[in-house]
Amino acid sequence: MATPLNSDHSVSFSEPRGFAATFKSDLKETFFPDDPFGRFRDEDRPRRRLKKAVEYFVPIFGWLPRYNFRLFRFDLLAGITIASLAIPQGISYAKLANIPPIIGLYSSFVPPLIYAVFGDSKHLAVGTVAACSLLIAETIGKAASPESDPALYLHLVFTATFVTGIFQTLLGFLRLGILVDFLSHSTITGFMGGTATLICLQQLKGIFGMKHFTTKTDIISVVHAIIKYRHEWRWESAVVGIIFLIFLQFTRYIRQKRPKLFWVSAMAPMVVVVVGCVFAYLIHGPEHGIQTVGKLKKGINPLSIHYLNFDSKYLPAVLKTGLITGLISLAEGIAIGRSFAIINNAQVDGNKEMIAFGFMNIVGSCTSCYLTTGPFSKTAVNYSAGARTAMSNVVMACCMALTLLFLAPLFSYTPLVALSAIIMSAMFGLINYSEIIHLFKVDKFDFFICAAAFSGVVFISMTVGLMLSVGLGLLRALLYVARPATCKLGKIQNSILYRDTEQYPGATVIPGVMVLQLGSPIFFANGNYIRERILRWIRDEEANSESEGGVIEHVLLDLTGVSTIDVTGIETLTEVQRTLYSKGVKMAIVNPRLRVMERFIQSHFIDKIGKENFFLSVEDAVEACQFSLHKSKQNGDVTSEPHSTITSL
Amino acid sequence: MATPLNSDHSVSFSEPRGFAATFKSDLKETFFPDDPFGRFRDEDRPRRRLKKAVEYFVPIFGWLPRYNFRLFRFDLLAGITIASLAIPQGISYAKLANIPPIIGLYSSFVPPLIYAVFGDSKHLAVGTVAACSLLIAETIGKAASPESDPALYLHLVFTATFVTGIFQTLLGFLRLGILVDFLSHSTITGFMGGTATLICLQQLKGIFGMKHFTTKTDIISVVHAIIKYRHEWRWESAVVGIIFLIFLQFTRYIRQKRPKLFWVSAMAPMVVVVVGCVFAYLIHGPEHGIQTVGKLKKGINPLSIHYLNFDSKYLPAVLKTGLITGLISLAEGIAIGRSFAIINNAQVDGNKEMIAFGFMNIVGSCTSCYLTTGPFSKTAVNYSAGARTAMSNVVMACCMALTLLFLAPLFSYTPLVALSAIIMSAMFGLINYSEIIHLFKVDKFDFFICAAAFSGVVFISMTVGLMLSVGLGLLRALLYVARPATCKLGKIQNSILYRDTEQYPGATVIPGVMVLQLGSPIFFANGNYIRERILRWIRDEEANSESEGGVIEHVLLDLTGVSTIDVTGIETLTEVQRTLYSKGVKMAIVNPRLRVMERFIQSHFIDKIGKENFFLSVEDAVEACQFSLHKSKQNGDVTSEPHSTITSL
Repeated sequence: MATPLNSDHSVSFSEPRGFAATFKSDLKETFFPDDPFGRFRDEDRPRRRLKKAVEYFVPIFGWLPRYNFRLFRFDLLAGITIASLAIPQGISYAKLANIPPIIGLYSSFVPPLIYAVFGDSKHLAVGTVAACSLLIAETIGKAASPESDPALYLHLVFTATFVTGIFQTLLGFLRLGILVDFLSHSTITGFMGGTATLICLQQLKGIFGMKHFTTKTDIISVVHAIIKYRHEWRWESAVVGIIFLIFLQFTRYIRQKRPKLFWVSAMAPMVVVVVGCVFAYLIHGPEHGIQTVGKLKKGINPLSIHYLNFDSKYLPAVLKTGLITGLISLAEGIAIGRSFAIINNAQVDGNKEMIAFGFMNIVGSCTSCYLTTGPFSKTAVNYSAGARTAMSNVVMACCMALTLLFLAPLFSYTPLVALSAIIMSAMFGLINYSEIIHLFKVDKFDFFICAAAFSGVVFISMTVGLMLSVGLGLLRALLYVARPATCKLGKIQNSILYRDTEQYPGATVIPGVMVLQLGSPIFFANGNYIRERILRWIRDEEANSESEGGVIEHVLLDLTGVSTIDVTGIETLTEVQRTLYSKGVKMAIVNPRLRVMERFIQSHFIDKIGKENFFLSVEDAVEACQFSLHKSKQNGDVTSEPHSTITSL
Repeated sequence: MATPLNSDHSVSFSEPRGFAATFKSDLKETFFPDDPFGRFRDEDRPRRRLKKAVEYFVPIFGWLPRYNFRLFRFDLLAGITIASLAIPQGISYAKLANIPPIIGLYSSFVPPLIYAVFGDSKHLAVGTVAACSLLIAETIGKAASPESDPALYLHLVFTATFVTGIFQTLLGFLRLGILVDFLSHSTITGFMGGTATLICLQQLKGIFGMKHFTTKTDIISVVHAIIKYRHEWRWESAVVGIIFLIFLQFTRYIRQKRPKLFWVSAMAPMVVVVVGCVFAYLIHGPEHGIQTVGKLKKGINPLSIHYLNFDSKYLPAVLKTGLITGLISLAEGIAIGRSFAIINNAQVDGNKEMIAFGFMNIVGSCTSCYLTTGPFSKTAVNYSAGARTAMSNVVMACCMALTLLFLAPLFSYTPLVALSAIIMSAMFGLINYSEIIHLFKVDKFDFFICAAAFSGVVFISMTVGLMLSVGLGLLRALLYVARPATCKLGKIQNSILYRDTEQYPGATVIPGVMVLQLGSPIFFANGNYIRERILRWIRDEEANSESEGGVIEHVLLDLTGVSTIDVTGIETLTEVQRTLYSKGVKMAIVNPRLRVMERFIQSHFIDKIGKENFFLSVEDAVEACQFSLHKSKQNGDVTSEPHSTITSL
């Protein structure tokens, strides 16, 4: 191929960077993409630098010194609001996890204090979540029975929480926030939807006031249990439950219509609990089929560090629970912190959040709390109530302490049917119909991932549903890299732009020159595919142009979209070049990016292809090709090229 | 942003293709990238179409009718040459797999015949391979002892071969050749190197004429066994072994120096066996520490279909062996078929080859053969000896049949030390030093993958080494998609090209406009990363330009390299736009590709961003930005934009 006519800009052949430099930059991109230390690294004065570093690692030092009464007014109101939500939710979700209701209240005392110190998000409200509570019941329930040995079961729950804490802290320190990224939005939507469906069905037990039920969580066992024990159904309970449910749903409807009245729905669960308590107390509930929570002890969290149980018999279940709930709760907490931060243009460092969640759960597991994270509903209420800093969590913790010290016994009259109504109402909000429809419309594979999570959770088990969905997501990610899109480029009229001929049917193809655009990295997993695909483009083009009498003499590979290449990828290009050459077709490379060019130089690919076959733009390359085509036609040596001689015996 | 000045070419907003169309094209790219049915699908006449289809599925119908005596002369010579290699290798590798040597001979009779009918490659020579033989010994050896219950062990080997066959056939029919692509070149290099090292050490048993040894395959156990049983070392055996080894290595050296004398090294193992037999017969070997193979029965392959053993007790080991050896042998066979096809400009259809290998192993397992594939050494000899068609495999099979019928008993005198020397010599050739050095120079991560396979195989076990290396490869593939390269573009002088400013330091940045190039698909696994990275680019740029007094007002995202996008990816871009907008920065999209544009339209992203913010080229977008910058300066309303107001309490 001749030298480009327009040679004032050509591809850079500068020396590759050293290994240390590229390795450092790779590490930075992989683990520190948000450059977290940038804020204090560039600070010259060592004292200010230390101060900034401390403020970075322990955010409370950043905001507390500047805290004032004006802000506190906002946080106080928000804190009281979320506390009124925390009490009914705490009791309800603890029942869901098959642990004593008081643990749910304890869990809203210590963890929020820890989060206030280490947490990065201003609006996140700490609390327990339904999905993880059910997951704990499902997995720990297989190792120890909550009915026959409740103490052991509770201790295993604490241990699992401890494992979660250690796991989350480790992930944060090792900057492995990337793991959470693999729980895609579609997976979470499906998983939450499936879990919510399951929980709703399960709560029919409470609504109907049934005494016996299944410990399994799949839909078939649950429906079977509801029918099997239908003689236990109590109409009194059902009536009360449905009234509560209608009330709760009505307050949600109000919030949707008038967002300013958010506090109506935020206070509603507390109203239900209080009304339920009074009602149960007055009519002597248990005598009329209205079961109540039962005795609740006064006093704040007792220590539970001596209960942690690392017996090898239970360790597999504990580890499994700890790791899975750890990941899910991180995914929820971080996603929520981030989405509220985006509204306010703040930044939330995912890895730092993990450490905060980790500390929260480690300390929690030692002080009679079970798994906590940043639940969506509570955080949204906190935000709507006007929280300005993590102080609202402190206020909530104080409210909880007061409740635990003085009011806890009052809640012992809470009817189970009220809790079931609260849980069901919360779950209705978690099934995101509009998102599922959106997924179906925009991306069928995303919808499929979501559906897999949903049906896996509903029909098999929560773990299976989650794994299945994550597996499909990974498969898709691998397919992206294994089958990168290639396309044929044509020239847009009256311009020097070359674009996909399928997308821009008006783009004209230059006779004798084939321009192909490759995408994503070229490496071992797609080397064979890319070779086959390039050869097929040429075969197809030749089959098309046979009627027109044209023959391809130049193939230009536009590598603009190729971010990196490995040894196998370079071999692939070498093989393509060799095959093309033997067919009398010349290959040129257009616009290789920095990393790709470095590999080309290191592997001596440049010398094999020839520097004159590297171009900075498709236009330059096409000009050079046309020059060479023109010359070869003038000399009449078109046929002297070594043409295709496939001995196709 | 104003309308582009140069508006005669703009982004195509045409309606997205239907789901069926994109799904079909995705399926085709994923499973049929080489368009295998293209050859006969376009044929109009139904009879010719059928004929072409039959020729496609059973390649022998394609070449046999045109076969002639001239070709047969080449194939005859090649066939005899590979047969002379097959006999010593068959016996040796059978010993490596701890099965009777006669099975090794059987395995070179039936499978080559099957391959000749269904196989696509012209030069591939069928035979047993060392790595898989050792792997069989390792994994089946754990389920049944080859010493105490040799019959059961042998039957399990047949069953594993049967499983391999079914697995390979299925992979081929389901067009899952993509699985083999994930065994990267680096993995294979490391795995082969590690296996060769192990086998060499193991063969010291034979060289020293030892009687006791370990059944374990890791280097520590092997070295320990050699030292532990050092009282069994026989100097007579060692002397003979070293002489054979020197002879074999010398013939290899000759082949390297004079490629035309390839037959010297091809015949050498046979010479070693014959000389060894004569020697052992003359001096009564066993009495002087020279152990021999022992009795070999006359007769061709007996049926073994009734030996297949699917007892659930052994099934896990059998399945594991079948699947792993199936994948490895496919990787070797297909890679070799392809590389010889490339030399000759022929095409090998990987999925069809899998079916051929599968049939070969299914039939093989029913006729007393164990695992066969296309080993590199034998195929290279076949190619060098001038093979033109798969007929050379038929010739080899005939030679083997004659050997089995008449000569087998003669080989019973083969000294074990001769076999060990043959294996060791072959293994020396499998450790690809130059490739390992090349990997180290060009790509440290590839080298790391290779080193992981090597050390995993040598220090732990072959399966662990393989898994470890494949796992690292997958991790890398996922990192590619989770952390796609982004770069800042600047304008190359005297052109309208925008290129990476790191790669082309001369490229000039337009004040107030930031051009970012994104690469690879944007989807759930990298959405967070891409958002953080874009914001960091802007932060860094603003920190830089603070001294210069510049402020970024436009961010252009060049999506040329983005091959596809999912729902999370679109959300990411929406969030970026929202964040930028609140800082007073406008975002525009440059050159979205077909698939990306379709998703943008389906998800109404276009409406959110505004059609006027989509440009076909960076130049167009920059012009529009400059126009808008100019206008805003004229009007003096720069400050009227909603500027950055991060309430960084």
